[in-house]
Amino acid sequence: MKTGNVRERAVVLFSGGLDSTTVLAMATAANLEVTALSFRYGQRHTLELQKAEEAAKSYDVKEHIIIDLDPEPFRGSSLTGNIPLPKHRENILRTIPSTYVPARNTVFLSIALGIAEARNANHIFIGVNSLDYSGYPDCRPEYIDAFQKVANLATKEAVEGTPPIIHAPLLYMTKAEIIKEGIELGVDYGKTLSCYQPNSRGESCGVCDACILRLKGFKANGLSDPAPYSSNEQ
Amino acid sequence: MKTGNVRERAVVLFSGGLDSTTVLAMATAANLEVTALSFRYGQRHTLELQKAEEAAKSYDVKEHIIIDLDPEPFRGSSLTGNIPLPKHRENILRTIPSTYVPARNTVFLSIALGIAEARNANHIFIGVNSLDYSGYPDCRPEYIDAFQKVANLATKEAVEGTPPIIHAPLLYMTKAEIIKEGIELGVDYGKTLSCYQPNSRGESCGVCDACILRLKGFKANGLSDPAPYSSNEQ
Repeated sequence: MKTGNVRERAVVLFSGGLDSTTVLAMATAANLEVTALSFRYGQRHTLELQKAEEAAKSYDVKEHIIIDLDPEPFRGSSLTGNIPLPKHRENILRTIPSTYVPARNTVFLSIALGIAEARNANHIFIGVNSLDYSGYPDCRPEYIDAFQKVANLATKEAVEGTPPIIHAPLLYMTKAEIIKEGIELGVDYGKTLSCYQPNSRGESCGVCDACILRLKGFKANGLSDPAPYSSNEQ
Repeated sequence: MKTGNVRERAVVLFSGGLDSTTVLAMATAANLEVTALSFRYGQRHTLELQKAEEAAKSYDVKEHIIIDLDPEPFRGSSLTGNIPLPKHRENILRTIPSTYVPARNTVFLSIALGIAEARNANHIFIGVNSLDYSGYPDCRPEYIDAFQKVANLATKEAVEGTPPIIHAPLLYMTKAEIIKEGIELGVDYGKTLSCYQPNSRGESCGVCDACILRLKGFKANGLSDPAPYSSNEQ
Protein backbone atom coordinates (compact mmCIF):
# COMPACT_ATOMS: atom_id res chain seq x y z
CA MET A 1 0.00 0.00 0.00
CA LYS A 2 1.34 3.40 -0.92
CA THR A 3 0.86 5.68 2.04
CA GLY A 4 2.90 8.64 0.92
CA ASN A 5 5.25 8.08 3.85
CA VAL A 6 8.93 8.51 3.09
CA ARG A 7 10.63 5.14 3.29
CA GLU A 8 14.31 5.09 4.11
CA ARG A 9 16.49 3.68 1.39
CA ALA A 10 19.03 0.87 1.44
CA VAL A 11 21.53 -0.71 -0.89
CA VAL A 12 21.75 -4.48 -0.29
CA LEU A 13 24.71 -6.48 -1.61
CA PHE A 14 22.98 -9.47 -3.10
CA SER A 15 24.58 -12.51 -4.70
CA GLY A 16 21.51 -14.75 -4.65
CA GLY A 17 23.14 -17.04 -2.10
CA LEU A 18 21.63 -18.12 1.19
CA ASP A 19 23.20 -15.38 3.30
CA SER A 20 22.55 -12.38 1.08
CA THR A 21 19.02 -13.54 0.28
CA THR A 22 18.31 -13.66 4.01
CA VAL A 23 19.72 -10.14 4.33
CA LEU A 24 17.54 -8.97 1.44
CA ALA A 25 14.51 -10.40 3.22
CA MET A 26 15.53 -8.65 6.45
CA ALA A 27 15.93 -5.28 4.70
CA THR A 28 12.59 -5.48 2.88
CA ALA A 29 10.86 -6.70 6.07
CA ALA A 30 12.16 -3.53 7.74
CA ASN A 31 10.16 -1.55 5.15
CA LEU A 32 13.25 -0.10 3.52
CA GLU A 33 13.18 0.92 -0.14
CA VAL A 34 15.79 -1.49 -1.45
CA THR A 35 18.30 -1.33 -4.29
CA ALA A 36 19.68 -4.86 -4.68
CA LEU A 37 23.25 -4.81 -5.97
CA SER A 38 24.98 -7.73 -7.68
CA PHE A 39 28.24 -8.13 -9.59
CA ARG A 40 29.07 -9.99 -12.77
CA TYR A 41 32.73 -10.90 -12.47
CA GLY A 42 33.21 -14.45 -13.64
CA GLN A 43 31.70 -17.48 -15.25
CA ARG A 44 30.33 -19.19 -12.17
CA HIS A 45 28.29 -16.12 -11.51
CA THR A 46 26.34 -16.30 -14.75
CA LEU A 47 24.18 -18.97 -13.18
CA GLU A 48 24.33 -17.37 -9.76
CA LEU A 49 23.15 -14.07 -11.27
CA GLN A 50 20.26 -15.73 -13.10
CA LYS A 51 19.15 -17.14 -9.77
CA ALA A 52 19.71 -13.75 -8.13
CA GLU A 53 17.60 -11.97 -10.74
CA GLU A 54 14.77 -14.44 -10.27
CA ALA A 55 15.02 -14.27 -6.48
CA ALA A 56 15.07 -10.46 -6.37
CA LYS A 57 11.69 -10.45 -8.09
CA SER A 58 10.20 -12.32 -5.11
CA TYR A 59 10.93 -9.40 -2.82
CA ASP A 60 9.69 -5.84 -2.67
CA VAL A 61 12.84 -4.50 -4.35
CA LYS A 62 12.80 -1.11 -6.05
CA GLU A 63 15.57 -2.03 -8.48
CA HIS A 64 18.22 -4.67 -9.05
CA ILE A 65 21.52 -3.34 -10.37
CA ILE A 66 24.13 -5.68 -11.81
CA ILE A 67 27.62 -4.21 -12.13
CA ASP A 68 30.07 -5.66 -14.63
CA LEU A 69 33.49 -6.02 -13.12
CA ASP A 70 36.20 -7.45 -15.35
CA PRO A 71 38.03 -9.96 -13.13
CA GLU A 72 41.13 -10.25 -15.31
CA PRO A 73 43.13 -7.38 -13.81
CA PHE A 74 42.56 -8.85 -10.38
CA ARG A 75 44.30 -12.05 -11.32
CA GLY A 76 48.01 -12.58 -11.05
CA SER A 77 48.21 -13.30 -14.77
CA SER A 78 50.67 -10.56 -15.60
CA LEU A 79 53.18 -11.62 -12.99
CA THR A 80 56.41 -12.17 -14.80
CA GLY A 81 57.27 -15.21 -12.75
CA ASN A 82 60.83 -14.09 -12.12
CA ILE A 83 60.07 -13.25 -8.52
CA PRO A 84 59.12 -16.21 -6.35
CA LEU A 85 55.75 -15.79 -4.69
CA PRO A 86 55.63 -16.29 -0.94
CA LYS A 87 54.34 -19.68 0.05
CA HIS A 88 51.17 -18.40 1.72
CA ARG A 89 50.18 -16.78 -1.56
CA GLU A 90 50.38 -20.09 -3.37
CA ASN A 91 48.08 -21.48 -0.72
CA ILE A 92 45.62 -18.68 -1.40
CA LEU A 93 45.66 -19.47 -5.08
CA ARG A 94 44.97 -23.11 -4.35
CA THR A 95 42.16 -22.59 -1.90
CA ILE A 96 40.13 -19.70 -3.26
CA PRO A 97 37.58 -20.26 -6.02
CA SER A 98 38.56 -19.21 -9.54
CA THR A 99 36.13 -16.33 -9.44
CA TYR A 100 37.61 -14.85 -6.29
CA VAL A 101 38.38 -11.15 -6.63
CA PRO A 102 41.06 -9.96 -4.21
CA ALA A 103 39.76 -7.31 -1.83
CA ARG A 104 36.32 -8.31 -2.98
CA ASN A 105 34.20 -7.01 -0.14
CA THR A 106 36.09 -3.70 -0.20
CA VAL A 107 35.34 -3.32 -3.91
CA PHE A 108 31.70 -4.32 -3.41
CA LEU A 109 31.20 -2.04 -0.40
CA SER A 110 32.86 0.91 -2.11
CA ILE A 111 30.60 0.57 -5.15
CA ALA A 112 27.62 0.19 -2.80
CA LEU A 113 28.77 3.38 -1.09
CA GLY A 114 28.78 5.25 -4.40
CA ILE A 115 25.36 3.96 -5.37
CA ALA A 116 24.02 4.73 -1.89
CA GLU A 117 25.17 8.32 -2.33
CA ALA A 118 23.56 8.55 -5.77
CA ARG A 119 20.30 7.07 -4.43
CA ASN A 120 20.31 9.12 -1.24
CA ALA A 121 20.29 5.84 0.70
CA ASN A 122 21.35 5.85 4.34
CA HIS A 123 21.78 2.11 4.74
CA ILE A 124 24.08 -0.48 3.18
CA PHE A 125 23.57 -4.18 3.94
CA ILE A 126 26.16 -6.91 3.52
CA GLY A 127 25.70 -10.58 4.38
CA VAL A 128 29.14 -11.28 5.82
CA ASN A 129 29.40 -13.78 8.60
CA SER A 130 32.30 -14.30 10.96
CA LEU A 131 31.26 -17.71 12.30
CA ASP A 132 30.25 -20.30 9.71
CA TYR A 133 32.46 -18.95 6.95
CA SER A 134 35.73 -19.69 5.23
CA GLY A 135 37.75 -17.22 7.27
CA TYR A 136 38.13 -14.43 4.73
CA PRO A 137 39.71 -11.39 6.39
CA ASP A 138 37.07 -9.06 4.96
CA CYS A 139 34.26 -10.83 6.81
CA ARG A 140 35.48 -9.94 10.29
CA PRO A 141 33.80 -7.42 12.60
CA GLU A 142 36.92 -5.22 12.75
CA TYR A 143 36.97 -5.02 8.96
CA ILE A 144 33.34 -3.87 8.84
CA ASP A 145 34.11 -1.30 11.56
CA ALA A 146 37.05 0.02 9.53
CA PHE A 147 34.94 0.32 6.40
CA GLN A 148 32.27 2.19 8.36
CA LYS A 149 34.94 4.74 9.29
CA VAL A 150 35.80 5.17 5.60
CA ALA A 151 32.09 5.60 4.82
CA ASN A 152 31.91 8.26 7.54
CA LEU A 153 34.52 10.32 5.68
CA ALA A 154 34.27 9.42 2.00
CA THR A 155 31.29 11.28 0.60
CA LYS A 156 29.77 14.74 0.67
CA GLU A 157 26.65 13.30 2.29
CA ALA A 158 28.78 11.77 5.03
CA VAL A 159 30.58 15.02 5.68
CA GLU A 160 27.27 16.85 5.83
CA GLY A 161 26.09 14.58 8.64
CA THR A 162 24.38 11.59 7.07
CA PRO A 163 26.93 8.86 6.38
CA PRO A 164 25.33 5.58 5.41
CA ILE A 165 25.26 2.90 8.09
CA ILE A 166 26.90 -0.39 7.13
CA HIS A 167 24.69 -3.21 8.41
CA ALA A 168 26.08 -6.73 8.68
CA PRO A 169 23.18 -8.42 10.46
CA LEU A 170 24.56 -11.96 10.03
CA LEU A 171 27.97 -11.16 11.47
CA TYR A 172 27.51 -13.10 14.70
CA MET A 173 24.90 -15.63 13.57
CA THR A 174 25.51 -19.32 12.93
CA LYS A 175 24.33 -20.73 9.61
CA ALA A 176 21.53 -22.48 11.51
CA GLU A 177 20.39 -19.18 13.04
CA ILE A 178 20.51 -17.46 9.64
CA ILE A 179 18.31 -20.15 8.11
CA LYS A 180 15.88 -19.99 11.05
CA GLU A 181 15.59 -16.21 10.66
CA GLY A 182 15.10 -16.51 6.90
CA ILE A 183 12.38 -19.14 7.21
CA GLU A 184 10.53 -16.89 9.66
CA LEU A 185 10.72 -14.14 7.02
CA GLY A 186 9.40 -16.50 4.35
CA VAL A 187 12.60 -16.95 2.35
CA ASP A 188 12.32 -19.71 -0.24
CA TYR A 189 15.77 -21.24 0.10
CA GLY A 190 14.99 -23.57 -2.78
CA LYS A 191 15.65 -20.57 -5.01
CA THR A 192 19.02 -19.68 -3.48
CA LEU A 193 22.33 -21.00 -4.69
CA SER A 194 25.37 -21.28 -2.45
CA CYS A 195 27.42 -23.97 -4.20
CA TYR A 196 30.89 -23.11 -5.54
CA GLN A 197 30.48 -25.52 -8.45
CA PRO A 198 26.86 -26.17 -9.43
CA ASN A 199 26.21 -28.22 -12.54
CA SER A 200 24.62 -26.84 -15.70
CA ARG A 201 21.14 -27.57 -14.34
CA GLY A 202 21.86 -25.38 -11.32
CA GLU A 203 22.13 -28.33 -8.97
CA SER A 204 24.53 -27.95 -6.06
CA CYS A 205 27.39 -30.39 -5.57
CA GLY A 206 26.72 -31.06 -1.90
CA VAL A 207 30.39 -31.44 -1.11
CA CYS A 208 32.07 -28.02 -1.41
CA ASP A 209 32.63 -25.79 1.65
CA ALA A 210 29.56 -23.70 0.92
CA CYS A 211 27.30 -26.75 0.51
CA ILE A 212 28.62 -28.41 3.65
CA LEU A 213 28.01 -25.31 5.80
CA ARG A 214 24.56 -24.87 4.32
CA LEU A 215 23.47 -28.49 4.72
CA LYS A 216 24.69 -28.46 8.32
CA GLY A 217 22.59 -25.35 8.95
CA PHE A 218 19.41 -26.96 7.67
CA LYS A 219 20.12 -30.15 9.60
CA ALA A 220 20.56 -28.17 12.84
CA ASN A 221 17.04 -26.80 12.27
CA GLY A 222 15.70 -30.31 11.70
CA LEU A 223 15.08 -29.49 8.06
CA SER A 224 16.31 -30.68 4.70
CA ASP A 225 17.60 -28.14 2.22
CA PRO A 226 14.94 -27.47 -0.45
CA ALA A 227 17.60 -26.59 -3.07
CA PRO A 228 18.36 -29.19 -5.74
CA TYR A 229 21.51 -31.26 -5.36
CA SER A 230 23.25 -33.41 -7.95
CA SER A 231 24.77 -35.82 -5.45
CA ASN A 232 23.22 -37.91 -2.71
CA GLU A 233 25.70 -36.70 -0.16
CA GLN A 234 23.55 -34.14 1.62
CA MET B 1 69.67 -1.96 -16.58
CA LYS B 2 68.45 -5.29 -15.31
CA THR B 3 70.37 -6.19 -12.20
CA GLY B 4 68.36 -9.16 -11.02
CA ASN B 5 67.47 -7.28 -7.86
CA VAL B 6 63.92 -7.66 -6.66
CA ARG B 7 62.11 -4.36 -7.16
CA GLU B 8 59.18 -3.61 -4.92
CA ARG B 9 55.90 -3.25 -6.71
CA ALA B 10 53.38 -0.44 -6.71
CA VAL B 11 49.94 0.28 -8.12
CA VAL B 12 49.63 3.94 -9.12
CA LEU B 13 46.21 5.50 -9.69
CA PHE B 14 46.77 7.42 -12.89
CA SER B 15 44.33 9.66 -14.73
CA GLY B 16 46.86 11.39 -16.98
CA GLY B 17 46.30 14.68 -15.18
CA LEU B 18 49.00 16.88 -13.69
CA ASP B 19 48.80 15.44 -10.17
CA SER B 20 48.71 11.72 -10.96
CA THR B 21 51.39 12.08 -13.64
CA THR B 22 53.65 13.67 -11.04
CA VAL B 23 52.89 10.78 -8.69
CA LEU B 24 53.68 8.29 -11.46
CA ALA B 25 57.03 10.02 -12.00
CA MET B 26 57.72 9.88 -8.24
CA ALA B 27 56.94 6.15 -8.06
CA THR B 28 59.07 5.23 -11.05
CA ALA B 29 61.89 7.50 -9.80
CA ALA B 30 61.80 5.45 -6.57
CA ASN B 31 62.64 2.38 -8.70
CA LEU B 32 59.31 0.70 -8.01
CA GLU B 33 57.88 -1.74 -10.53
CA VAL B 34 54.72 0.15 -11.44
CA THR B 35 51.26 -0.92 -12.52
CA ALA B 36 49.50 2.26 -13.69
CA LEU B 37 45.75 2.04 -13.11
CA SER B 38 43.15 4.14 -14.93
CA PHE B 39 39.37 4.04 -15.17
CA ARG B 40 37.03 4.49 -18.11
CA TYR B 41 33.81 5.80 -16.64
CA GLY B 42 32.49 8.58 -18.85
CA GLN B 43 32.81 10.53 -22.04
CA ARG B 44 35.25 13.19 -20.91
CA HIS B 45 37.67 10.47 -20.02
CA THR B 46 37.94 9.09 -23.53
CA LEU B 47 40.30 11.93 -24.34
CA GLU B 48 41.83 11.91 -20.87
CA LEU B 49 42.54 8.18 -21.24
CA GLN B 50 44.15 8.61 -24.65
CA LYS B 51 46.46 11.16 -23.08
CA ALA B 52 47.03 8.85 -20.11
CA GLU B 53 47.95 5.94 -22.37
CA GLU B 54 50.43 8.08 -24.29
CA ALA B 55 51.88 9.52 -21.09
CA ALA B 56 52.27 6.13 -19.38
CA LYS B 57 54.54 5.05 -22.23
CA SER B 58 56.98 7.85 -21.32
CA TYR B 59 57.64 6.23 -17.95
CA ASP B 60 59.18 2.94 -16.90
CA VAL B 61 55.78 1.37 -16.30
CA LYS B 62 55.40 -2.40 -16.25
CA GLU B 63 51.76 -2.30 -17.34
CA HIS B 64 48.89 0.12 -17.72
CA ILE B 65 45.51 -1.30 -16.76
CA ILE B 66 42.30 0.50 -17.72
CA ILE B 67 39.20 -0.62 -15.83
CA ASP B 68 35.76 -0.10 -17.34
CA LEU B 69 33.33 1.20 -14.77
CA ASP B 70 29.79 1.86 -15.95
CA PRO B 71 28.88 5.22 -14.42
CA GLU B 72 25.13 4.90 -14.91
CA PRO B 73 24.30 3.11 -11.64
CA PHE B 74 26.16 5.83 -9.76
CA ARG B 75 23.86 8.49 -11.08
CA GLY B 76 20.59 9.42 -9.45
CA SER B 77 18.76 8.53 -12.64
CA SER B 78 16.48 5.95 -11.10
CA LEU B 79 15.26 8.26 -8.37
CA THR B 80 11.53 8.38 -8.65
CA GLY B 81 11.38 12.05 -7.85
CA ASN B 82 8.63 11.66 -5.29
CA ILE B 83 11.03 12.32 -2.44
CA PRO B 84 12.52 15.82 -2.40
CA LEU B 85 16.30 15.82 -2.45
CA PRO B 86 18.03 17.82 0.26
CA LYS B 87 19.27 21.14 -0.98
CA HIS B 88 22.98 20.39 -0.49
CA ARG B 89 22.59 17.44 -2.85
CA GLU B 90 21.27 19.68 -5.59
CA ASN B 91 24.33 21.83 -5.04
CA ILE B 92 26.53 18.77 -5.47
CA LEU B 93 24.87 17.95 -8.74
CA ARG B 94 25.42 21.45 -9.97
CA THR B 95 29.04 21.76 -9.02
CA ILE B 96 30.55 18.36 -9.77
CA PRO B 97 31.54 17.40 -13.31
CA SER B 98 29.18 15.13 -15.22
CA THR B 99 31.66 12.29 -14.99
CA TYR B 100 31.84 12.42 -11.20
CA VAL B 101 31.35 9.03 -9.59
CA PRO B 102 30.12 9.25 -5.99
CA ALA B 103 32.60 7.71 -3.56
CA ARG B 104 35.06 7.78 -6.41
CA ASN B 105 38.33 7.58 -4.54
CA THR B 106 36.97 4.76 -2.37
CA VAL B 107 36.03 2.79 -5.50
CA PHE B 108 39.41 3.54 -7.12
CA LEU B 109 41.40 2.67 -4.01
CA SER B 110 39.47 -0.54 -3.41
CA ILE B 111 40.11 -1.72 -6.96
CA ALA B 112 43.76 -0.70 -6.56
CA LEU B 113 43.82 -2.76 -3.37
CA GLY B 114 42.54 -5.83 -5.21
CA ILE B 115 45.03 -5.41 -8.04
CA ALA B 116 47.84 -4.81 -5.55
CA GLU B 117 46.99 -8.11 -3.89
CA ALA B 118 46.92 -9.90 -7.24
CA ARG B 119 50.28 -8.34 -8.23
CA ASN B 120 51.86 -8.87 -4.83
CA ALA B 121 52.43 -5.10 -4.67
CA ASN B 122 53.08 -3.49 -1.31
CA HIS B 123 52.49 0.10 -2.36
CA ILE B 124 49.49 2.02 -3.67
CA PHE B 125 49.91 5.63 -4.83
CA ILE B 126 47.13 8.18 -5.16
CA GLY B 127 47.55 11.82 -6.20
CA VAL B 128 45.04 13.39 -3.84
CA ASN B 129 45.78 16.84 -2.55
CA SER B 130 44.19 18.60 0.39
CA LEU B 131 45.38 22.12 -0.44
CA ASP B 132 44.87 23.27 -4.04
CA TYR B 133 41.81 21.15 -4.69
CA SER B 134 38.06 21.44 -4.92
CA GLY B 135 37.42 20.26 -1.37
CA TYR B 136 36.23 16.72 -2.05
CA PRO B 137 35.87 14.84 1.24
CA ASP B 138 37.82 11.85 -0.08
CA CYS B 139 40.96 13.92 -0.59
CA ARG B 140 41.50 14.70 3.08
CA PRO B 141 44.27 13.22 5.23
CA GLU B 142 41.79 11.61 7.64
CA TYR B 143 40.09 9.85 4.73
CA ILE B 144 43.40 8.40 3.52
CA ASP B 145 44.18 7.27 7.09
CA ALA B 146 40.78 5.54 7.32
CA PHE B 147 41.31 3.74 4.03
CA GLN B 148 44.77 2.61 5.20
CA LYS B 149 43.06 0.96 8.18
CA VAL B 150 40.70 -0.87 5.80
CA ALA B 151 43.72 -1.95 3.72
CA ASN B 152 45.34 -3.26 6.91
CA LEU B 153 42.41 -5.62 7.44
CA ALA B 154 40.91 -6.36 4.03
CA THR B 155 43.14 -8.92 2.38
CA LYS B 156 44.89 -12.17 3.20
CA GLU B 157 48.22 -10.50 2.53
CA ALA B 158 47.38 -7.76 5.01
CA VAL B 159 46.39 -10.26 7.67
CA GLU B 160 49.60 -12.18 7.09
CA GLY B 161 51.66 -9.11 7.86
CA THR B 162 52.18 -7.20 4.62
CA PRO B 163 49.33 -4.78 4.03
CA PRO B 164 49.99 -2.39 1.18
CA ILE B 165 50.95 1.14 2.17
CA ILE B 166 48.73 3.87 0.76
CA HIS B 167 50.98 6.73 -0.37
CA ALA B 168 49.50 10.16 -1.01
CA PRO B 169 52.69 12.13 -1.58
CA LEU B 170 50.93 15.29 -2.79
CA LEU B 171 48.61 15.53 0.19
CA TYR B 172 50.25 18.56 1.74
CA MET B 173 51.82 20.11 -1.36
CA THR B 174 50.62 23.23 -3.14
CA LYS B 175 50.06 23.01 -6.88
CA ALA B 176 53.21 25.10 -7.35
CA GLU B 177 55.24 22.62 -5.24
CA ILE B 178 53.80 19.68 -7.18
CA ILE B 179 54.82 21.24 -10.50
CA LYS B 180 58.29 22.06 -9.16
CA GLU B 181 58.75 18.45 -8.03
CA GLY B 182 57.51 17.12 -11.36
CA ILE B 183 59.80 19.34 -13.40
CA GLU B 184 62.77 18.15 -11.34
CA LEU B 185 61.71 14.58 -12.21
CA GLY B 186 61.48 15.47 -15.90
CA VAL B 187 57.68 15.37 -16.26
CA ASP B 188 56.51 16.76 -19.60
CA TYR B 189 53.43 18.64 -18.44
CA GLY B 190 52.61 19.48 -22.05
CA LYS B 191 51.35 15.90 -22.27
CA THR B 192 49.12 16.08 -19.21
CA LEU B 193 45.49 17.12 -19.26
CA SER B 194 43.73 18.60 -16.25
CA CYS B 195 40.86 20.53 -17.86
CA TYR B 196 37.26 19.55 -17.04
CA GLN B 197 36.09 20.47 -20.53
CA PRO B 198 38.83 20.29 -23.17
CA ASN B 199 37.83 20.78 -26.80
CA SER B 200 38.00 18.06 -29.43
CA ARG B 201 41.63 18.91 -30.20
CA GLY B 202 42.54 18.26 -26.56
CA GLU B 203 43.05 21.94 -25.80
CA SER B 204 42.23 23.06 -22.27
CA CYS B 205 39.64 25.75 -21.63
CA GLY B 206 41.79 27.82 -19.28
CA VAL B 207 38.81 28.87 -17.20
CA CYS B 208 37.54 25.82 -15.27
CA ASP B 209 38.61 25.14 -11.66
CA ALA B 210 41.26 22.63 -12.73
CA CYS B 211 42.76 24.98 -15.32
CA ILE B 212 42.81 27.93 -12.93
CA LEU B 213 44.62 25.94 -10.20
CA ARG B 214 47.08 24.60 -12.71
CA LEU B 215 47.87 27.92 -14.38
CA LYS B 216 48.38 29.51 -10.95
CA GLY B 217 50.85 26.74 -10.09
CA PHE B 218 52.95 27.32 -13.19
CA LYS B 219 52.86 31.07 -12.67
CA ALA B 220 54.09 30.69 -9.08
CA ASN B 221 57.09 28.84 -10.51
CA GLY B 222 57.71 31.66 -13.01
CA LEU B 223 56.73 29.33 -15.85
CA SER B 224 54.03 29.13 -18.46
CA ASP B 225 52.03 25.94 -18.82
CA PRO B 226 53.31 23.95 -21.83
CA ALA B 227 49.87 22.35 -22.37
CA PRO B 228 47.75 23.67 -25.26
CA TYR B 229 44.89 26.03 -24.42
CA SER B 230 41.98 27.08 -26.61
CA SER B 231 41.49 30.45 -24.95
CA ASN B 232 43.87 33.30 -24.33
CA GLU B 233 42.87 33.55 -20.71
CA GLN B 234 45.82 31.74 -19.17
